[in-house]
Amino acid sequence: MRVLGVDCGTERTGYGVIETDGRDHRLIVCGVLRTRASQPLAARLAAIAEGLRNVIATHSPQAAAIEEVFISVNAKSALKLAHVRGVAMLTIEEASLPLGEYSPLAIKTSVVGYGRAEKEQVQTMVRSLLRLDEAIDSPDAADALAVAICHATRS
Amino acid sequence: MRVLGVDCGTERTGYGVIETDGRDHRLIVCGVLRTRASQPLAARLAAIAEGLRNVIATHSPQAAAIEEVFISVNAKSALKLAHVRGVAMLTIEEASLPLGEYSPLAIKTSVVGYGRAEKEQVQTMVRSLLRLDEAIDSPDAADALAVAICHATRS
Repeated sequence: MRVLGVDCGTERTGYGVIETDGRDHRLIVCGVLRTRASQPLAARLAAIAEGLRNVIATHSPQAAAIEEVFISVNAKSALKLAHVRGVAMLTIEEASLPLGEYSPLAIKTSVVGYGRAEKEQVQTMVRSLLRLDEAIDSPDAADALAVAICHATRS
Repeated sequence: MRVLGVDCGTERTGYGVIETDGRDHRLIVCGVLRTRASQPLAARLAAIAEGLRNVIATHSPQAAAIEEVFISVNAKSALKLAHVRGVAMLTIEEASLPLGEYSPLAIKTSVVGYGRAEKEQVQTMVRSLLRLDEAIDSPDAADALAVAICHATRS
């Protein structure tokens, strides 16, 4: 099965598609949708929606997964992030993909085995689980792959 | 000019389109997009997007306006609302409509003349400004028309 993972952000939205049987996972594609800080939020949302629709159309995932969102330290960023998350959920729903939602704790636990793992540990484990020769440059793409792996192992 | 106002909500999203010259306003259409509480958020977002796209396609507004969102009492509802708001902004952007964003204070001040006006006062003034024979049933539709009127008088 192909699973799309999305790591939402107003400036950088990571995405990753894996092929998985629930135990073994293979990288199909990963990357980051970048938007310009000078753009208004509406234009950024449209760019993110277009990017995700392209990824879905090109790589035909059968399921998708994203991280849950909470109000943590910065309420204003969480609100902005929720706009992007809404748009990501819409593109996934409009592609008729079943959607899994996971807490950061669940994602880290399923990828690293430890809920309070650092970003670097997630990157290292994602590389190892996908048996990649090289590290994944972008932490956003690695986070997106981590959500996809979490969904693959839990569903 | 035709202006679309949107009042976002996960259960009820109000919309209203007015024809305006900046001083006199006329009601074109208003209503509420309802979603079922039993539906997952992704399905609700898709229903709201479809509803707004229909309103835009049918009534051809040339501009749109929505309320700003803040973390007030209930952070969880504000986060949910921001998902809907992101989707509303996306449909507006994808229809190439310029978008105005206004605080609740600005909207109430421009419609009622008083920033701390009650919901009923907004409904009454919207009815009066649009010279309607009957009251607008739904406070969500009235709020959407209020945002549209605010945009019309301020831009």
